[in-house]
Amino acid sequence: MLRPRSGWHQWVGGERYVMSPAVSAVEFSDPFGNLCQRLVAPAGPFSVRTSVDVESADAFDTAPGAPFVEVRYLPNETLPFLLPSRFCESDRFTQLAVSVTAGHAPGYNQCTAIVDYIRKAVRYAPGFGQEIISACEAHQRAQGVCRDLTHLGIACCRALSIPARMVVGYLETLEPMDLHAWFEAYIGGRWYAFDPTQDNPRGGRIAIAYGRDAADVAIYTQFGDPVDLLRMEVTVRRMSAPQY
Amino acid sequence: MLRPRSGWHQWVGGERYVMSPAVSAVEFSDPFGNLCQRLVAPAGPFSVRTSVDVESADAFDTAPGAPFVEVRYLPNETLPFLLPSRFCESDRFTQLAVSVTAGHAPGYNQCTAIVDYIRKAVRYAPGFGQEIISACEAHQRAQGVCRDLTHLGIACCRALSIPARMVVGYLETLEPMDLHAWFEAYIGGRWYAFDPTQDNPRGGRIAIAYGRDAADVAIYTQFGDPVDLLRMEVTVRRMSAPQY
Amino acid sequence: MLRPRSGWHQWVGGERYVMSPAVSAVEFSDPFGNLCQRLVAPAGPFSVRTSVDVESADAFDTAPGAPFVEVRYLPNETLPFLLPSRFCESDRFTQLAVSVTAGHAPGYNQCTAIVDYIRKAVRYAPGFGQEIISACEAHQRAQGVCRDLTHLGIACCRALSIPARMVVGYLETLEPMDLHAWFEAYIGGRWYAFDPTQDNPRGGRIAIAYGRDAADVAIYTQFGDPVDLLRMEVTVRRMSAPQY
Amino acid sequence: MLRPRSGWHQWVGGERYVMSPAVSAVEFSDPFGNLCQRLVAPAGPFSVRTSVDVESADAFDTAPGAPFVEVRYLPNETLPFLLPSRFCESDRFTQLAVSVTAGHAPGYNQCTAIVDYIRKAVRYAPGFGQEIISACEAHQRAQGVCRDLTHLGIACCRALSIPARMVVGYLETLEPMDLHAWFEAYIGGRWYAFDPTQDNPRGGRIAIAYGRDAADVAIYTQFGDPVDLLRMEVTVRRMSAPQY
Repeated sequence: MLRPRSGWHQWVGGERYVMSPAVSAVEFSDPFGNLCQRLVAPAGPFSVRTSVDVESADAFDTAPGAPFVEVRYLPNETLPFLLPSRFCESDRFTQLAVSVTAGHAPGYNQCTAIVDYIRKAVRYAPGFGQEIISACEAHQRAQGVCRDLTHLGIACCRALSIPARMVVGYLETLEPMDLHAWFEAYIGGRWYAFDPTQDNPRGGRIAIAYGRDAADVAIYTQFGDPVDLLRMEVTVRRMSAPQY
Repeated sequence: MLRPRSGWHQWVGGERYVMSPAVSAVEFSDPFGNLCQRLVAPAGPFSVRTSVDVESADAFDTAPGAPFVEVRYLPNETLPFLLPSRFCESDRFTQLAVSVTAGHAPGYNQCTAIVDYIRKAVRYAPGFGQEIISACEAHQRAQGVCRDLTHLGIACCRALSIPARMVVGYLETLEPMDLHAWFEAYIGGRWYAFDPTQDNPRGGRIAIAYGRDAADVAIYTQFGDPVDLLRMEVTVRRMSAPQY
Repeated sequence: MLRPRSGWHQWVGGERYVMSPAVSAVEFSDPFGNLCQRLVAPAGPFSVRTSVDVESADAFDTAPGAPFVEVRYLPNETLPFLLPSRFCESDRFTQLAVSVTAGHAPGYNQCTAIVDYIRKAVRYAPGFGQEIISACEAHQRAQGVCRDLTHLGIACCRALSIPARMVVGYLETLEPMDLHAWFEAYIGGRWYAFDPTQDNPRGGRIAIAYGRDAADVAIYTQFGDPVDLLRMEVTVRRMSAPQY
Repeated sequence: MLRPRSGWHQWVGGERYVMSPAVSAVEFSDPFGNLCQRLVAPAGPFSVRTSVDVESADAFDTAPGAPFVEVRYLPNETLPFLLPSRFCESDRFTQLAVSVTAGHAPGYNQCTAIVDYIRKAVRYAPGFGQEIISACEAHQRAQGVCRDLTHLGIACCRALSIPARMVVGYLETLEPMDLHAWFEAYIGGRWYAFDPTQDNPRGGRIAIAYGRDAADVAIYTQFGDPVDLLRMEVTVRRMSAPQY
């Protein structure tokens, strides 16, 4: 999954996708609308290089006070994001979510309270994320990568009947630069982004894929003989104006 | 989810669906093709009674020796059933699945070996299934309801790159009579049923819903104030011939 | 297509579906969400009998003054219903639609004006509908069955950039009783029904299938050796209360 | 619709999409899987420039003798391509299709016979295609652009119960260079391309969009005040090797 799509929040103005050695690949849409590429990697070294020029908002979009949407009024397509999933055991987070959001207005402010709690309770430790752990496990360890903090945020939102989904993407000025993960919650009739690893979340975001949790949005899901990841490099650069 | 659909394996010849008191409900298809009914239950006692006349095979369909389908040849729509899900942590079952199926031909026979192992290792204890536990937890406890044994079977299949999905439905002659759960694995180009709780799996099955695990196929998913389940009654009766 | 679905406008409380001789059939959803049954009919006489108990509104839902939705604000899923289709050559009806609706407020009132025009300009001649003709042809002949008048209404709405779709269904008190066809237009954020063949459209409607025109919503689409339709009988009866 | 997708037949290795003046656009998938861009064009001159690097087969893929697939064995998703559509009135072409293919084996050879007939009966007259005409009209006029000949081919295939769909795309070495249209028929278990306007159909094809006919695959569908097409330029250039 390395093909960002254009949506209301971002516009893909240019794109490159090169495999070497070149192999045949096919593309399909998964149930979340992500464009997925299927291919059989050859034995030996194999590289995939993609690059994308995207227009995206400078500012991080917030809406303090945006109201909780009662479950009865949620669009059908948001319902799968209320259910527990592999790495977001929302069925085990009711108590925590209720206590962390006590006194906060239902909706956007609950999500802010959840994110604030995560920032305090779980140390952001980039670079220690080989094995994927779940929200329960991340909470117990009290430290994690962006993916783990995101899982925790999603689990708490769902525990309050707020649809929440994972986003994997690029974020300008991320330190150290890498792929990034954050989540979106459905509030006041639309999706809003929340980023538990950023104190002052910035714009300059490019969404690559959406899903219920890391199981759905892995950049690559590999079957067959194990592979060694030799190198992964991510660069995000601000472009002053469209250059094609 | 109480509206079985007609497919190649079953034909719905008649159906009744009564709520009392009567309330408005809407119906939609979820990502797995299940017909779901959404409604706001009134305060106080509320009952849903459904009944369905279905043509279904007498015999349980088996295919010893049916071959493993290499991941590269799997249809796109089976791929979500390779991923770990809330109650089937297939990413934690590789070792067990490999050891349990050692010496068995890839495909159907591996699934049989998995089911045989589950029957030995996990005691079927109907009636102790209030909280939904995951495959890892069921394996640890070494006992469970049909749902738990099914989760374990699914997790092991996926760990071997065999797509597996959960089925909730009715089974004639189940003792004690209740809703039942089993799983299907994609082998030799189609889905085959496996039932870890039945020594000699029987036909007479009616599928109500398909999904990745119990999170997707709950008969009801309830939000808002807690409800008490006062009574649930399931009856399956063989009909000698269509009677309408 | 003989399996009405539950939606916000109707609720299926009971259903029977009998083929004789009995044959295997499979069911799938078409791109419009209709449940379709596929089967190979045996040589010789073959009958399909269905029956359905549906809750439906007594009154015909109207909304004079409901506003036109600018194309930019239309939901994506309504867009296919703006395009011309086999029997609704909307690309040839701009001039007529504009002249017929002159002086009427954009939206619901335009649709009313179109329907009024059709009632005057095209004689409703039930029973003369063997060959399916298009909106252009129906307009030229100045007479037609409910299907033809509906095609004409759809073509005019689309010519004004109002999404319009065909509905095939049952209507209580239709004289003579038969399957019926009407159309829906997307106005003011939702679909409204219009029935060019009824002077004072009544409720008591059951939608069986939706589509762009008669090509999509045929009750049966038959391939292979020609068949003779020996008999078709439709009965609609008001039920005082759910009876199961 | 100007965003070709990667599939088994082509791979998009690079892409540019520039609008000037720049406006916001959103993207969605239509029922045929095409990526569609929605936007509100500003008043005054407005240009859209896209460019795409695609790997595509050099040779035109043929399969003389490939068998007709009986309707009962067709995949559900091919069925909409059996129905008549706006510009392919297949319900009016049974007699012609049967007579033109007399003596030819069912399947691929029938399609070849249809294409041969079209080349003889309808003069290819590039550049005279402002108004979109239907297969019936094109047949009557005995001349047309690639779109018209394609509609005629599709109508004849469907009349023989062979699913057929329209393709709009680029073709290297087309003379004069322009967008091109051809069709695909479902034979022997897959889609094969046919091009009624090319005596010796070549490879070097890039599919931009698929649909039932020209109504579905217009490069742009415009609503609101009429626009003048000031200039349209298409260039297809063979690249010796990926250059990014």
